[in-house]
Amino acid sequence: MKIVQKDFRISTKDRNQMIDITGQVGSAVKQSGITNGDVIVYCPHTTAAITINENADPTVSQDILLTLSELVPHSRSGYRHFEGNSDSHCKSSLVGCSEQVLIKDKSLQLGSWQGIFFCEFDGPRSRRVLVQVRGE
Amino acid sequence: MKIVQKDFRISTKDRNQMIDITGQVGSAVKQSGITNGDVIVYCPHTTAAITINENADPTVSQDILLTLSELVPHSRSGYRHFEGNSDSHCKSSLVGCSEQVLIKDKSLQLGSWQGIFFCEFDGPRSRRVLVQVRGE
Amino acid sequence: MKIVQKDFRISTKDRNQMIDITGQVGSAVKQSGITNGDVIVYCPHTTAAITINENADPTVSQDILLTLSELVPHSRSGYRHFEGNSDSHCKSSLVGCSEQVLIKDKSLQLGSWQGIFFCEFDGPRSRRVLVQVRGE
Repeated sequence: MKIVQKDFRISTKDRNQMIDITGQVGSAVKQSGITNGDVIVYCPHTTAAITINENADPTVSQDILLTLSELVPHSRSGYRHFEGNSDSHCKSSLVGCSEQVLIKDKSLQLGSWQGIFFCEFDGPRSRRVLVQVRGE
Repeated sequence: MKIVQKDFRISTKDRNQMIDITGQVGSAVKQSGITNGDVIVYCPHTTAAITINENADPTVSQDILLTLSELVPHSRSGYRHFEGNSDSHCKSSLVGCSEQVLIKDKSLQLGSWQGIFFCEFDGPRSRRVLVQVRGE
Repeated sequence: MKIVQKDFRISTKDRNQMIDITGQVGSAVKQSGITNGDVIVYCPHTTAAITINENADPTVSQDILLTLSELVPHSRSGYRHFEGNSDSHCKSSLVGCSEQVLIKDKSLQLGSWQGIFFCEFDGPRSRRVLVQVRGE
């Protein structure tokens, strides 16, 4: 059993944005030398998240961001957090701050349409992603 | 440390449906020969998800599906994805495409009322579930 | 590869409550003797969840609970589950029953503002949390 950890930075440009990081995660897996196992993709921020969804058609991400913003409005009477980003924190807990993907033959075992996304909910910011590859 | 992977197919019958797959996952754990560790249950589809919730009373699943459909309507002005299943993609990211369960004494360490569900959000379809058991 | 499992109990006081369990999880990691790896924090209940979010300002948790209760009302026409806690089950599947955190140098690799929370959605109750530390 081998454990290899990497991290990388990304810069987001909008307040709400989904950025495809499948390439960076796949590279970390290749570089790890691990053939079979899994990889954890972890976001160390409380106003962002990681999700897996379709990366072929960019309108899918747009519709996910639209839906999240309709479910969790930026301003709402009742919010008590003074920073004005309660919506960002809520979206982070709804989507979740990590995902795991299985590894087979040194490759991510994603479905045909799946990509891994960093979800920015309080940008633009410079963000960090942790990647831990584990296996043999 | 041992890593054993299996996969199985299921056929869904409705557009939105939760199917109890606890039995199939438990069998994969038994067959793996692993005594202690964990199992990742992974859905390689972008309009479906995996969740853990009550499997004793089927009305729980019905109420979860009802709530998700009220939160994320099938049609909405503003959706841009042309396939008409933006709601399915959104539900997938809200619920999440994988779960992990701990293994002790060759058994799933689920709570008394917990079962593992495959969540179909764009059925009916033939779907695949990946199961990776890891441990000793 | 070493696998160490612990569990602990918590008592919740409100119907909806987020309790910071970062200290208990960090202690389990220290006691495990594991230097690098990850920890799974698992909730074996179907009306509760685990999330990672800001634990510096308590208004963040309050706003997350407020948002979840507005998204998923306690009573709604259409709920079929007789126990009157369909909302609790829905929130559990939206937030998710487990989280995983990476471990480096015997410590949780959380972001500066991240804490691990047990989310009670049907309290007050006595609850259990499972913690599995894995690594070397």
